[in-house]
Amino acid sequence: MTTHGRVTLPIEVGIDEDVKKLMQQLGADAVRNSDGTHLPDLVHELAAKVYSTYFPARGDQEWALDNPDTTIHQYLQSPRTPALGGDLVIDIMEGYLTEQFAPNTQVDLARYWQVIDRTTGRTLAREEWELIDDSHVRILAPELGHLYTVNFLARQIWDSTQMYNYITNNWDDDPTRHQERPYDVRLPKVWERVRSELDRWLAEHDEIDVVRFTTFFYHFTLVFNNQRKEKYVDWFGYSASVSVEAMEAFYAEYGYRLTPEDFVDEGYYNCSFRVPTKAFRDWMDFQNRFVTSRVRELTDAVHAAGKEAMMFLGDNWIGTEPYGERFAETGLDAVVGSVGNAATCRMISDIPHVRYTEGRFLPYFFPDVFNPEGDPVGEANTSWMAARRAIVRSPLDRIGYGGYLSLAIQFPEFVERITQICQEFRDIYEAAAGERPLAAPVRVGVLNAWGKVRSWQTHMVAHALPFEQTEAYVGVLEALAGLPFDVEFMSFDDIRAGVPEGIDVLVNVGEAGTAFSGGAHWADVELQSVVRRFVADGGGIIGVGEPCAYIANGAVNQLSDVFGVDQEQSFSLSTDRYPTRAEEHFIMQGEGGAALRLNAAGGSRFWVPVTSSVEVVASEGTSVHAAVNAYGQGRSVYLAGLPFSQENARILARAIYWAARAEDSYEASIHAEDQRVDVASYADGAVFVYNSSMETVSTVLHGVPQEKAAVTLEPLGSLWLRP
Amino acid sequence: MTTHGRVTLPIEVGIDEDVKKLMQQLGADAVRNSDGTHLPDLVHELAAKVYSTYFPARGDQEWALDNPDTTIHQYLQSPRTPALGGDLVIDIMEGYLTEQFAPNTQVDLARYWQVIDRTTGRTLAREEWELIDDSHVRILAPELGHLYTVNFLARQIWDSTQMYNYITNNWDDDPTRHQERPYDVRLPKVWERVRSELDRWLAEHDEIDVVRFTTFFYHFTLVFNNQRKEKYVDWFGYSASVSVEAMEAFYAEYGYRLTPEDFVDEGYYNCSFRVPTKAFRDWMDFQNRFVTSRVRELTDAVHAAGKEAMMFLGDNWIGTEPYGERFAETGLDAVVGSVGNAATCRMISDIPHVRYTEGRFLPYFFPDVFNPEGDPVGEANTSWMAARRAIVRSPLDRIGYGGYLSLAIQFPEFVERITQICQEFRDIYEAAAGERPLAAPVRVGVLNAWGKVRSWQTHMVAHALPFEQTEAYVGVLEALAGLPFDVEFMSFDDIRAGVPEGIDVLVNVGEAGTAFSGGAHWADVELQSVVRRFVADGGGIIGVGEPCAYIANGAVNQLSDVFGVDQEQSFSLSTDRYPTRAEEHFIMQGEGGAALRLNAAGGSRFWVPVTSSVEVVASEGTSVHAAVNAYGQGRSVYLAGLPFSQENARILARAIYWAARAEDSYEASIHAEDQRVDVASYADGAVFVYNSSMETVSTVLHGVPQEKAAVTLEPLGSLWLRP
Repeated sequence: MTTHGRVTLPIEVGIDEDVKKLMQQLGADAVRNSDGTHLPDLVHELAAKVYSTYFPARGDQEWALDNPDTTIHQYLQSPRTPALGGDLVIDIMEGYLTEQFAPNTQVDLARYWQVIDRTTGRTLAREEWELIDDSHVRILAPELGHLYTVNFLARQIWDSTQMYNYITNNWDDDPTRHQERPYDVRLPKVWERVRSELDRWLAEHDEIDVVRFTTFFYHFTLVFNNQRKEKYVDWFGYSASVSVEAMEAFYAEYGYRLTPEDFVDEGYYNCSFRVPTKAFRDWMDFQNRFVTSRVRELTDAVHAAGKEAMMFLGDNWIGTEPYGERFAETGLDAVVGSVGNAATCRMISDIPHVRYTEGRFLPYFFPDVFNPEGDPVGEANTSWMAARRAIVRSPLDRIGYGGYLSLAIQFPEFVERITQICQEFRDIYEAAAGERPLAAPVRVGVLNAWGKVRSWQTHMVAHALPFEQTEAYVGVLEALAGLPFDVEFMSFDDIRAGVPEGIDVLVNVGEAGTAFSGGAHWADVELQSVVRRFVADGGGIIGVGEPCAYIANGAVNQLSDVFGVDQEQSFSLSTDRYPTRAEEHFIMQGEGGAALRLNAAGGSRFWVPVTSSVEVVASEGTSVHAAVNAYGQGRSVYLAGLPFSQENARILARAIYWAARAEDSYEASIHAEDQRVDVASYADGAVFVYNSSMETVSTVLHGVPQEKAAVTLEPLGSLWLRP
Repeated sequence: MTTHGRVTLPIEVGIDEDVKKLMQQLGADAVRNSDGTHLPDLVHELAAKVYSTYFPARGDQEWALDNPDTTIHQYLQSPRTPALGGDLVIDIMEGYLTEQFAPNTQVDLARYWQVIDRTTGRTLAREEWELIDDSHVRILAPELGHLYTVNFLARQIWDSTQMYNYITNNWDDDPTRHQERPYDVRLPKVWERVRSELDRWLAEHDEIDVVRFTTFFYHFTLVFNNQRKEKYVDWFGYSASVSVEAMEAFYAEYGYRLTPEDFVDEGYYNCSFRVPTKAFRDWMDFQNRFVTSRVRELTDAVHAAGKEAMMFLGDNWIGTEPYGERFAETGLDAVVGSVGNAATCRMISDIPHVRYTEGRFLPYFFPDVFNPEGDPVGEANTSWMAARRAIVRSPLDRIGYGGYLSLAIQFPEFVERITQICQEFRDIYEAAAGERPLAAPVRVGVLNAWGKVRSWQTHMVAHALPFEQTEAYVGVLEALAGLPFDVEFMSFDDIRAGVPEGIDVLVNVGEAGTAFSGGAHWADVELQSVVRRFVADGGGIIGVGEPCAYIANGAVNQLSDVFGVDQEQSFSLSTDRYPTRAEEHFIMQGEGGAALRLNAAGGSRFWVPVTSSVEVVASEGTSVHAAVNAYGQGRSVYLAGLPFSQENARILARAIYWAARAEDSYEASIHAEDQRVDVASYADGAVFVYNSSMETVSTVLHGVPQEKAAVTLEPLGSLWLRP
C-alpha cells in the first residue's frame, strides 16, 4: 500500500513543477534547503513542513569580521624537534595552514603556552624559552639529544566546515565567497549577538517550520595542513572548544587549572581511542553543561516563535552529547544526521529525549555521483542495505536526502529506486508503530572506558569513514546495529559495583591500550574481580581483538583465566601449546550443518591458548582466531577480529547466544537459515524478512508463527508475512 | 684437488671395513661414538683422533640412585588459579610430569616457596597459605575474584636429555634402560665424586684423544607435561641451575636474597626474550663463575691425562656462556655444536678462546630421514646451503656427522654428496688459511639488551627450530650470518657512554617489549640521546619490526624522530598521512634495474610515517614495510620485518650500505648481480662464488679482480676464481 510522509527533500529555485511531482512521488512531507541553495517561494504553497539551516557560530560574517577578537581557539602542538647542537628554534606553524590558524601570542605565555621536553616529559620553565616572533620559539639551553615541542594557543581564523567546502569546491575565484570566521559564544558579546540575531531571524522567517541548527557552537576537530589538505580530523574532538575564558571559567568551577598539555595530550589530542583522563572528562562535562544551557536558550526562542528546533548531528555538535546526561535539557525537538552504515544509523535513531530523529541518506545529490559515469542507484542500494539493518531494529522517524534536486531528477532510475526505498521505510516504521520488533532473549552490554556517552560511536574517527586499523573492531558495532539484541553501552565505572541486573553478555572490543579495550582500567583489581565473578556466576563475556589488555603480573589479557587465551609477547614462546580444537562448535554452525567461516582479517595476532580448558574454534598458524571457554557457571568467547559481513554477524549472534548459555533456544529463535537474510518479528505477529545481500537467496525461516517459512528474496528484496 | 682431514665421523661396532673405506672417502681424521653406540676396537688401528662422549652430570647412575638428595632442582609455577568462592586449593603439579618433578617440601617453605596473588602482584605471608600434602596448597582466606599461583621448588628426578631420548625412543619396555637422575655439582659430595670418576675414567681410556663433554652440569630448561610431551623448552634457560645451596651461596656473595619469583618471573622464567632483570643477570654471572671454575678443574684433569677437552654446545651447557667474559678460563680446547642454519653456525664458529670449533651437520644418520621415503641428499643440500653462507664468512675448523654410520652407508648417493661437501668445506677452510675473507667496509653493531653474551643467539627459543612469531626478526640474524659485514653484538650498556668507534651502523631488531627491541631500556633518556647524536653526527641505524619501542611521551618508537616512522596505536588515526614515496630507492634496486621485493611477512603492522622528511620505500595498506630517513648527517632505515631469503638479505645488505652513506661504493663492492649468488674474496686474490639457491643461475660479478666476471652456477654450485 502506498503511503505518504516521513520523508524530507532538498528543494531549490526554478524547478517548481519537478518539486511538486517528486514530493508526490516520494511521499515527501518536508522540504529543506541545502548549503548553497535557497528555498523557492513555492514553499508557501506546499503542504509540507519547511526546514531551514541556521548557523549560530558562523552565520553572521559581517559582524565576525568587525570583531576579530571573537574567534574560536585551538591548542596545537609544534613538530617534535630534536636538539642536535647549535641554536634550537622551533617553527611552531610548520605543517599548519596559516589561513586557518594564527598563534595567539597576546595571552599570558607562561600559563597558556607550554614547552615540553618530550624525551623526559618535563615542562620547561618560562625562562627556558623565548618567543622570537609570531611563529618561532627558541629553546635557550636545549639538552643535546632531547626532543622538544611547543603547545601553543592559536586563533582559528577560518571556520572548519566552510574551509572544507571552500577548498573542496575551489571558491578562491568566486568573489561572492569569503573565508568565514567562527566566533566563540563563550564571550558575552558574541552570545548577546547570537541571541539577538536569532530573534531577528525568527521574526523574519514565518515560512520556516523547523530551524535546523547546523550546528551550534563548537566544531569537531578539523585541521588542515600547509598544502590545504586535511591534516587532522576527529569527529569527536573537543580541541576547538578551548579559550582562555573557558579555561578560567573551568578553574573557577572545578578548582584546578588545566594546562595546554591537557588538550594537546602528547599530540593525540584526546581522541576517543585514548583512555580519557580525568581532566578531559571534566572538560567535556564542563563544556557540555555550558553548551546545553546555551542551546536551551536558543530552543526556547525557537519554540516561542512557534517553530521546531532540530539539531544536525555533525559539524559544530561538540558539547551537545546526545547520549549525555543533559541532552533532555537542550529542549531540542529532533536530531538529523548522516547515515553512513548501520552503526551510524543507530547512533541517530537511538538518541533519547527528542520527539523524532531523521536520517540523511546517501548518496547526496552532488555531481561526484550524479554524472554519466556515476552509479547513483548502486550507491542508494548499498546505503539502504546497511541502513535498513539498523532501521528495522531501531526505526528512524524520518529519512531525507541532501544536495541538488535538479541533479537527481536527471536520473529517473534513481528516482524510481528511492521511491521504493521511501515506501519500504514507511512500511517498516508503521509496522513498528513506535516500538521496536521483538528482541532476542539475551541482553548485551558493550563495555569500554566511555560507556553510554559514546553509544554507537566507538572505533570511529571521522564518522563512517573506513580505517584499516579499526575495521576488525568497528565491525562488531556494525553487526550489533542490525542484530536483534538489546544493546547497552557501559563504562567500567558502571560495573565497578557489579554488572547491572539484566545484562547477560559483556562485550569488550578493541586494540590494547585504547579506551575501547580499556587500557589501564584493567589494572584495577576490583574491575577484574567483578567481571570474573560475573562470569563465574553464570554470565557471558565476549572479547574481540585485544580485550582486557594491560601488561602486568604475567599476562596481557588481565582476564586470561576467563578467556583461556592471552596475547603472546614472545615471552611464552618457550611454552608448548596443545590446544583442544573444536572447529565444529555451536558458534560456527551454519545452514545445513556447513560451518560458518570467521573472517578475522585485521584483528589481533598471536593470541594463544593458556589454560587447559579453553577450546580453539578457529586459528591461523599459531594465532587463535576464535576460542570458547567455560569458566565457573559462565562462558567466554574470544574472537581475534570481526570485520563486518553477514557471515561474521551471524557468528557474533551465535557467540552471544552461546555465551549466555542460551544456545538451546537459538534453533527456535527468529532467524533465517541463510545468514544473508535478516528477520524481524513484531508484537502483532507481523514478520519482516529482508535480504541483506546483493544476491537472490532462498532460505527457510525459524521461529516465525507463519506456516510457510520457506522464502526466496531478490537481491536486497524484502517481504512481509502477516498473521 | 682432493684433500684430507677436518671431518669427524660417528662409527660403530661391526662394520670395520665400511668404516675404513668411508673414512678414506670423506677424508675423515677423527671418529666418535654416538648416544647408544660403542667405539669398535678398530679405533686403535685408525690413523685418527678418537672422541668419546662424557656425561659429568648424569653418567654415574648407580651412585646417583644411592644419593637421592643430590638431584637438580627447578622452580615451577602452579597454574593461575582464580578464587571464585569456596575453598581454594591449588594442585601445584597440575600439568607437570610426576616422573620428572617432585615438589621439595623439606625446605624452609617461607623462604623457598612463594604464593603470589597474580591480580595484585602481592606475595602472601606464610600464614596465609598451608601445604596440604606434597602437591596441594590451600589459600586460607583468598580474595574473591583474585588469581593465585604457587612458586615451588621441585626436585628434578629425571634428566632432561635422557628423558627426551627415553620417551622419544619408547624405552619403557627396555629392561636395560632406567630413568636417569641428574645430580648437582654444587653439593661437595657430588663434586668430589665427579672429580674422582673423571680421573678413574681418564686412566682407563687410553684410546681416547678427545673428551667430548656432553655437557657439563646444568641442562637448559626442558619441562615435560603429564602427557609426557614437551611443556616448556628454553635452550638458554637457567631454571635447572637453582638449589637452596646455590641461593645461599649467592646471598653470601651478592649480599641480597633471590626469591622464587626471581626464577619464576611471572611464569616467563627469564626466557631470553625478557629484558633481563638485575637479579637474573647476577644469577647468570654467579653460575657462570661457578661453572667456569668447575669446568677448569675438569679440563685440567683432561689435559693432565694428555687428552683434549671438547664441549658440546647444548644439553648441559648452561653457565658456560661461550661469549661471556670467563670463557677463556675454562681451558677448553674445542667446542662442537649442531648446525641448524647460518646463524647457529656462526654461533659456533665465532666462539673465541678455543683452538677449534666443529659443526655437527644435518641430517643425523637416524631412521627418521634414512628410510626409503626419506630424502637424505635433499636434507644435506638444504643444510649445506644455509651453513655454507656462514662458513665462508667465519669458517668452522671442522665438520662432522652424528648417528649410525651403518644406516648412512645404505644410501650411496648420500655418501657421494657428503663426500663433495666435505671437500668443499676443506677448500673453503684452506683458502681462508685461518682468516676470514675480506669484509665489506661497513661495520655493524647489533644492539639489544643482551649484547655480546648472546652473540648470534637472539630470537631463538629452542636452537634453530622455527617459530612463526620470530621468523621476521631472526631472519635479520640469518641474513647477517652470511653477509660480508663484520658484526658485533652490543648491549645498551655498551653504548651508554657513546657508540664505540668503528661501528658504522646500529641494528635494533625485534618485537616491542622484548630484550631484543629493548623494552624499558628505551625509557632511558641518555640512551636515546646517545643514539640520536650518533645518527645526527653521521652514523646509521636500521630498525626492524618494533625497534626502540617503549610507549611514552607521545610515541611508541622512542626514536620516531630518527626513523620518521612510529607504530600507530589508533591514537593517531585522526592524523592524515601523506607519505613521500620512494619505491625506487637504492635499497630496493636489484639486478638490471628491476626492483627487489621486500617480504615483510610476519613483521610488525601499522607503522606509519610521522615526520615530513621520511620516505616510504615499501608499504602494504597503511602499514609501512620499509622507510628511509635522513637525520642530521646520518641516516635511518626502517623495515617492518625480514624473514630470511636471499632477496631480503640483499635488501638488508643495501640498507646497511645506504645507512652508512656508503652506497656509492656498493656498485664496485664484491657481489654478484643476482642475489641468489654469494661471493667472497680473499686477501690473496682468490674469489669464491657460490650459488645459495636450488636454481641454476647465470650472473655477473662486481668488485672482483678477475677479468671474466660472468659466471653460471648449477643449483648450490660453487667455483673458485684465482688470480
